[in-house]
Amino acid sequence: LDYQHVQVPFEITLWIMLASLAKIGFHLYNKLPSVVPESCLLIFVGLIMGGIIYGLNDKSPPVMDSDIFFLYLLPPIVLDAGYFMPSRPFFENIGTILLYAVVGTIWNVFGIGFSLYGICQVKAFRLQDVSLLHNLLFGSLIAAVDPVAVLAVFEEIHVNEKLHILVFGESLLNDAVTVVLYKLFRSFCEMPAIKSVDVFAGVGTFFVVGLGGVLVGLTFGMTAAFTTRFTKDIRVIEPLFVFLYSYLSYLTAEMFHLSGIMAIVACAMGMKRYVEANISLKSHTTVKYFMKMWSSVSETLIFIFLGVSTIGENHEWNWPYICFTVIFCLIWRALGVLVLTFFVNRFHVNTITSKDQFIIAYGGLRGAICFSLVFLLPDFHRKKLFIAATTVVILFTVFIQGMTIRPLVDLLAVKRKRESAPTVGEQIHIRFLDHLLAGIEDISGHWGQYYWKDKLEYFNSKYLQKILLREYDQPKSSIVLLYEKLERKHAIELAEAGQLGHAPSHPSLLNNDRTVITDKKLEDTLDLDVLENIQEILARNLYRIRRTGPAYNRHTLPGETEPMGHAKEILILRHKSL
Amino acid sequence: LDYQHVQVPFEITLWIMLASLAKIGFHLYNKLPSVVPESCLLIFVGLIMGGIIYGLNDKSPPVMDSDIFFLYLLPPIVLDAGYFMPSRPFFENIGTILLYAVVGTIWNVFGIGFSLYGICQVKAFRLQDVSLLHNLLFGSLIAAVDPVAVLAVFEEIHVNEKLHILVFGESLLNDAVTVVLYKLFRSFCEMPAIKSVDVFAGVGTFFVVGLGGVLVGLTFGMTAAFTTRFTKDIRVIEPLFVFLYSYLSYLTAEMFHLSGIMAIVACAMGMKRYVEANISLKSHTTVKYFMKMWSSVSETLIFIFLGVSTIGENHEWNWPYICFTVIFCLIWRALGVLVLTFFVNRFHVNTITSKDQFIIAYGGLRGAICFSLVFLLPDFHRKKLFIAATTVVILFTVFIQGMTIRPLVDLLAVKRKRESAPTVGEQIHIRFLDHLLAGIEDISGHWGQYYWKDKLEYFNSKYLQKILLREYDQPKSSIVLLYEKLERKHAIELAEAGQLGHAPSHPSLLNNDRTVITDKKLEDTLDLDVLENIQEILARNLYRIRRTGPAYNRHTLPGETEPMGHAKEILILRHKSL
Repeated sequence: LDYQHVQVPFEITLWIMLASLAKIGFHLYNKLPSVVPESCLLIFVGLIMGGIIYGLNDKSPPVMDSDIFFLYLLPPIVLDAGYFMPSRPFFENIGTILLYAVVGTIWNVFGIGFSLYGICQVKAFRLQDVSLLHNLLFGSLIAAVDPVAVLAVFEEIHVNEKLHILVFGESLLNDAVTVVLYKLFRSFCEMPAIKSVDVFAGVGTFFVVGLGGVLVGLTFGMTAAFTTRFTKDIRVIEPLFVFLYSYLSYLTAEMFHLSGIMAIVACAMGMKRYVEANISLKSHTTVKYFMKMWSSVSETLIFIFLGVSTIGENHEWNWPYICFTVIFCLIWRALGVLVLTFFVNRFHVNTITSKDQFIIAYGGLRGAICFSLVFLLPDFHRKKLFIAATTVVILFTVFIQGMTIRPLVDLLAVKRKRESAPTVGEQIHIRFLDHLLAGIEDISGHWGQYYWKDKLEYFNSKYLQKILLREYDQPKSSIVLLYEKLERKHAIELAEAGQLGHAPSHPSLLNNDRTVITDKKLEDTLDLDVLENIQEILARNLYRIRRTGPAYNRHTLPGETEPMGHAKEILILRHKSL
Repeated sequence: LDYQHVQVPFEITLWIMLASLAKIGFHLYNKLPSVVPESCLLIFVGLIMGGIIYGLNDKSPPVMDSDIFFLYLLPPIVLDAGYFMPSRPFFENIGTILLYAVVGTIWNVFGIGFSLYGICQVKAFRLQDVSLLHNLLFGSLIAAVDPVAVLAVFEEIHVNEKLHILVFGESLLNDAVTVVLYKLFRSFCEMPAIKSVDVFAGVGTFFVVGLGGVLVGLTFGMTAAFTTRFTKDIRVIEPLFVFLYSYLSYLTAEMFHLSGIMAIVACAMGMKRYVEANISLKSHTTVKYFMKMWSSVSETLIFIFLGVSTIGENHEWNWPYICFTVIFCLIWRALGVLVLTFFVNRFHVNTITSKDQFIIAYGGLRGAICFSLVFLLPDFHRKKLFIAATTVVILFTVFIQGMTIRPLVDLLAVKRKRESAPTVGEQIHIRFLDHLLAGIEDISGHWGQYYWKDKLEYFNSKYLQKILLREYDQPKSSIVLLYEKLERKHAIELAEAGQLGHAPSHPSLLNNDRTVITDKKLEDTLDLDVLENIQEILARNLYRIRRTGPAYNRHTLPGETEPMGHAKEILILRHKSL
């Protein structure tokens, strides 16, 4: 037996296996995941595992290594989040999200830091040795909402898209603020005296860290898109580039002390559109599937390790400090959301309702990022107190808030995500409004959201697409081709059902081959997911409009409005046009 | 700048990126890969990289770590090879393959070892300090044909299936022999005296190592199949189990000093059938794609590292020893193939032609396994000579043999792989013969290949499928359902082309929903790849038979034998039957 030779890969594989089997286990009992969020169950499994290890070895179980977390477990989750980010709601609410992420996080850091310092001044609590700077440092790590925890809970409760993107976007973008403030306070703790220059440098660093991360991400994203232009002959390694470049963007950003999370999100969002157009459909399925699989496994491991790491002798218990930390986290977040939303609502037509505000405040879950940051703290005599407080805050938010948020969403009747896809009418309407508003902004000289969007789209189609896409000659009138295809499809269905009573003219038979070719071309050039989507929408809605709008209905009798009738109608129209 | 923090993942990602970009680079020039095998190009890239590193640092570039090779780079390739192994030709030729792999490898080891020892006795060569045991040890590592190198070359030259499986199967199954002989001679080298007991123990070990590996693999494979029964609600982690269980089987086998390669091949071949039936189509695409991608990257990295590791100061040059090693490798392999094939041909109806024998002998490429084994040798004063000889043999076989084998295959007009899939007639014929031969063997009391295959199939359908498959209620008359489906499809096409002159009876319209449901069921329960295959075969061949066989043709006029006519014919037949 030669265990030590295979130890590293064997144990990693076993941990992943445990995580996957735990996931299967939960889903075997359908009722369990609908009551308790999976994250809670996984932490619970971790706690049991940790208890067993502690009981057997009589020493603390291994703590999740911060390096492993930041280098291997976090990137897949953030990549997945960035790649599947709904870009429209994200950019529509980018101002609000940034306000929450930047101002909100700073507000929370200083609020929690200063008020905990106040608590430390009470002599009865025996906390007078915790300095203001240490409290602020603790505030900076405990203030940040965690994207992993937020995703795990919000994906299960299906709130409306705007609310989801506000909480989730904030949790992603606050990374830059957290990184800067955490590093700032940590270096302040080690400095003998702080000059005002240092404080200003810190503020400047924030922009460098955030924007630098985005820039690194976009650079790698564009390079990835450019690389996939040349993979036509070796389809099999296409998916690799998506993962390699985004991971490189994350590592490069981390290397330069920039925000890795923002880099990988920017990389994923930037490359998605071009990569999807370049790679084959099967490669794309693999990319999507593997990304989901990987992030799911990472998330599972993180929560299990959170549970395992909780057990042990790393904690120093101090009731007042820990209780007040939980209370201040709740209070300052609630206050912050209230104040910031007040300003947001003054400048927006689509206001954030008070129910939404409550969910935003209540959804501020803390998770593995805080946990890893607290272990990265330099050693000082109160570190174990901070670890204990962080653990309690994470467990409180994930268990109490995570488990009660679903009933609360039900109770408050918070607006849910709409189940159906938008209709063609809505889509056309939205497109039309975009163009209209861009035009209005252009004429009035107001450089607003729509103006920039229009300019960006122009830049994209004029330059970026030509450089980054392999096949640029996309047919302009794809909607016409699509209509032809649908019409033909319905004719087939009609014929299959035996409703076709007359033979079409011979030329259409001869044309058959040609149309099949254009179809193939259409499918190759159009993004296939979009095509499927459009097709489904058209299939569902073209008839709905006919059915509801009387103008379209006038030449059919009321009794004929079955699907068959519609299909026949199309054929008649088509023959007229021939 | 904090490089050291991200160094490990960053450098790994960069190496993979380099490998992938090199692959893209070759394929940009279409002519290059058709002349020079990719493996040669990659080694060449590696040589250049190694030269640059050597030139810049003035010290030997890093050598491929044997642990990295055996634990991380080899398993994906062998997994891919096992998963996509064509099982029918493999099991049909299993006797011949085992003969080549076991007897042939032992023959080569001792042949090369003893004749090199003879060379060492020549005083002029100054090699008298290399003992017989060391020569045999060297023989054991240089004799084994390498699956990675064989795959890389044989996948490009498209020889016939039997020839391919003979060389490739041998390269996979000789692992057990290589492992045993290598470890045996290595331990003999360190022993003061060798008893005859040790030799017999070594022979016994061979069976334990080989069969133990297969047993470990099958156990994990069955567990994997069983696990995927329960993944219906979390499709996203299904692909993971395929990779986790097969990797675990490899690591477990390695841990117990069994043959890891045989374990992972057995695991992949065992689980494939059941896993495919259990997991969703998208999961399966991901599994297949990712396996191909991973093995492709591993292979690329191995060849690049082979090139990089060649440069440096690890070599001790001795012309006679190195030249005779290459010559003996060639001679003993050719002799072994000739002698073994003589015996094989006496017992088989399908003889191996002399052309095939030449390609089998010439296709005995050596690769990274020899290279890793030679670095794993215990330190002794002639290790550098062995490293040099191994490197030369690998480069000789990969470059000279790898580059000339394609022209030779063309020149000798070796039977190629048939491009088209077997016809339905052939398939039915093969099936029928299988059953017939199983029956004959059963009656005559001869427990041959077909008897065991039949028994295994019975055991599979009686027990294994019930335990391992989620949905066991597969419709028995799937061919009938398939025929119905095809018939309907043709009716549709006919109707679309406007050739359908009469309306079918009303009941068939009402039945439409039912048949659609059975179709869906059919698609769900039947293996979808098989279904597609059958469909294609039927679509292509049903008509071919009609066209060529006059008996089927009698009630149509010669002029009518266009596709349209056939479709109409089917419809007429169907209406008659109703």
